[in-house]
Amino acid sequence: MKFSCMKSELAQAIQIAGRSIASKPQTPIMSGIFMYAHDDILEIQATDYEIGVMLHIPAEIEAPGQAVVSGRYLQEVVRTLPEEEVSIAYEKSTNICTIASGRSNFNLLSMKSEDYPQIRRIKEGKTFKVSSAVLGELIRRTIFACATNETRPVFTGALLEVEGNNLSMAATDVHRLALNKESIEEEQKGKESYIVPKRVLEEVRHVFGGEVPEDVTVKCTRSEMSFETEKVYLTSRLIDGQFPDYRRVIPSEFGTRVTLKHSEFFAAVSRVGLIARASDYNIIKLIFNMGQVHISSDNPIVGKAEETVPAVIDGEDIKIALNASYLIDVLKILNGENIVISLNGTLKPAAVRDPEKEDFIYIITPVQTRT
Amino acid sequence: MKFSCMKSELAQAIQIAGRSIASKPQTPIMSGIFMYAHDDILEIQATDYEIGVMLHIPAEIEAPGQAVVSGRYLQEVVRTLPEEEVSIAYEKSTNICTIASGRSNFNLLSMKSEDYPQIRRIKEGKTFKVSSAVLGELIRRTIFACATNETRPVFTGALLEVEGNNLSMAATDVHRLALNKESIEEEQKGKESYIVPKRVLEEVRHVFGGEVPEDVTVKCTRSEMSFETEKVYLTSRLIDGQFPDYRRVIPSEFGTRVTLKHSEFFAAVSRVGLIARASDYNIIKLIFNMGQVHISSDNPIVGKAEETVPAVIDGEDIKIALNASYLIDVLKILNGENIVISLNGTLKPAAVRDPEKEDFIYIITPVQTRT
Repeated sequence: MKFSCMKSELAQAIQIAGRSIASKPQTPIMSGIFMYAHDDILEIQATDYEIGVMLHIPAEIEAPGQAVVSGRYLQEVVRTLPEEEVSIAYEKSTNICTIASGRSNFNLLSMKSEDYPQIRRIKEGKTFKVSSAVLGELIRRTIFACATNETRPVFTGALLEVEGNNLSMAATDVHRLALNKESIEEEQKGKESYIVPKRVLEEVRHVFGGEVPEDVTVKCTRSEMSFETEKVYLTSRLIDGQFPDYRRVIPSEFGTRVTLKHSEFFAAVSRVGLIARASDYNIIKLIFNMGQVHISSDNPIVGKAEETVPAVIDGEDIKIALNASYLIDVLKILNGENIVISLNGTLKPAAVRDPEKEDFIYIITPVQTRT
Repeated sequence: MKFSCMKSELAQAIQIAGRSIASKPQTPIMSGIFMYAHDDILEIQATDYEIGVMLHIPAEIEAPGQAVVSGRYLQEVVRTLPEEEVSIAYEKSTNICTIASGRSNFNLLSMKSEDYPQIRRIKEGKTFKVSSAVLGELIRRTIFACATNETRPVFTGALLEVEGNNLSMAATDVHRLALNKESIEEEQKGKESYIVPKRVLEEVRHVFGGEVPEDVTVKCTRSEMSFETEKVYLTSRLIDGQFPDYRRVIPSEFGTRVTLKHSEFFAAVSRVGLIARASDYNIIKLIFNMGQVHISSDNPIVGKAEETVPAVIDGEDIKIALNASYLIDVLKILNGENIVISLNGTLKPAAVRDPEKEDFIYIITPVQTRT
C-alpha cells in the first residue's frame, strides 16, 4: 500500500474514526485504525463491535492495499505533521507503516490487516432519509433521559420509531421520559421501532453535526442500523428487548398549567440545585402560588436555598417535589423563551414543554416527601 | 457578623482562597473559608497548613464578626448569585450563614470559627521587594524541573537564594537542573537560601500573576515565607533540609555549541517525542553533524521517528541521547527565537540556554544507550 493525501482531511477522518475505538480494546487489533487505499480513495475504518465508522477521503494511490496501525499514534502523528502533503506506505515484509511529510519520517509498527474485523454494510432493510439537523435535535432532546445504570439494557438506549411521515425518539430511565417527534419527507409503510444505544446516538450527533445540514440515509434491520452520507458510513448494533409502552405515562390532561420565563427559572433552579444536589440529597421543592413559584431545597447536610420567580399559573395552586437533576437536565436542553410546566397534583407526574415546540414532551415523576 | 459587598470582588477572592483548601481536608473545618468582617473590610482566609492565603475586599459592615463556611459551597453559591450586591449574615445561635442577593436566599450550615487555624503573619525576617512579573518568570522557568517523586523532600521544592542584588531560583530532580537569576533593587546583606514547595510557588505565580505587575513584599524566616501585596497575603511553610550544591553540575566550558531555531527544533522534537514518550521508553537521540541535527527515537514497542533540522554547529560533531520529556519541558518554557545547546561529549551533561537570556541555564544529564 502506498498513497499520498492532504494532512487536514486525513487528520479529520482519523479523529472521527478514533472515537469509535474502545478505550480498553478487547484485543490489540481493536486498538487499530484500518486503512484501505484503492481507486483514488482512502477508506478508513474503526470499530469496537458495538459501533463502526467508515470514512472516505480523496488520495493519490501509488499502490493499492491495506494496513492497520495503532489509532492513538496515528492520530497524534498525523495531527502534528509539518506539511500539508502526507505520504503513507505499508511494507508487508517488515510490517512497518511509514508516514512521511516534509523532513519528518515515522515508521509505525503495524498489525495484520487480515485480522481486522472489517465493517460490513447493511444491504437490505427499512431505509429513509432525514436531515442531519433534524436527527441531531431528535437525539439532543431525548438521550439525556436514558438510564446510566446498565441493569436493564433497554433503558440505556433510545427508542426510534418510524411510521408514515413520522420519526420519533423516546428515552426513559423509569423515573422520567423524554419524547420528541419529527417528520420525514417520504412516507413509510408500516410501523417499526428500534432501540439504539445512547453512545451510538451521541456519536451520530457528533459525526453528522456539521454546520451545514446534509441528508443522512438511515437503514435498519432487526439487529443493526446504519447512518450514511457521501463521506461517512456509521453502523450500530441495536439493543435487543422490549421497550415499555411509554405512551401510558403521558397524562391526557392536566389541572394546572404554569408558564415561566425559561432563562429566569433555569437560573433560579440551578442556584437552588447547588444546594439540592450536594451530598446526593437531590430534592427540590416547587410551590406554585399567587403568581409566582417558590423554589427551595432544604438539604440536611449543607443548608437551605430559596428563590422566587414570577409565574403565570392557570389552574389550581399546587406544590410538588422533584429530583433536582431531572429538572435541570430538561431545562438545559430547552432553549425557547418560555417553558410550560403542567401538573395534576403533588404526587402525579408533571410535564415540561417548550410552548413553541409541540412535538417535545418531558415527563417527570415527583418525589414523595414528608413535608 | 453582617455585611454587604460586591459579588464580583467576593467571588474572585473566594476563588483564589479556595485553591488553598486541601482536596481531602484533614478535619472538616479545613474545608472551610474563614470570613472576618471588621473596619469596612472583609478578610477571607483559607489554608491547608502548608499554604495559607488571606485576602481583603471592601465591605459595608453592619455588625463585625467572623464565620467559617464550606469553601466549596460558598464558591459555587456566590459565583451564581443574580445581583451584584450580596449580603452575608452569620447567626451564632443557629450556626447558619445567610447569603442573600436579589430574590435568592441561601442558608449554609456553618462551622465554629473559634476552631479555625487562623493565619499568623510573619513579624520579623529577611524582607525584600520584587516585581510580580520577575517573581512569576523566576518560578515559571525553574519549577518544572522539581522532582514529582516525594522520596527526597528537598527536591520537591525550589531553592530561592538572596544575595546582594541577586535573586536566584534553582530546581532539580537529580537528572536535570533549571537555574534562573534575577536582580532586585535593594541590596541585601549576607546570603540566605530557602527551599519553597513547588505547589506554593505555582500558587504564588497564579495569585500574583495579574497583567499589571505589582510589587510583592517577600518576608522569610527559617521555617516560613510570606508574599504580600495590598490585597493579598500568602504564606508558606518551607522545606527543611540541605539543597545540594548545584553549581558543581554546571560545566565551566563546553566543546560544542549548537544554535537552533527554537520553533523549528521544538516542533521536530515534539513530533519525535510522540514516539519516544510512548510506553515509557522516553529516549530521544540527537546527532549534530554537517550543519544539521538529526533527531530520532527508535521505540521498540511503537516504531521509529526521524526528523532533521538545520543547525549552526560550533565545535566538534557530536551525538547524545536524552530523556525526551526533559528536553521537551525546557523547550516549552523558552520562548526566544533561538536556543543554544552546549555539549562536551556523548556522556557529559548538556546545557540548554536562550542566547538572549544569559541568566537562565538548564542542565540535562544524558541517557546511556548501547548504540
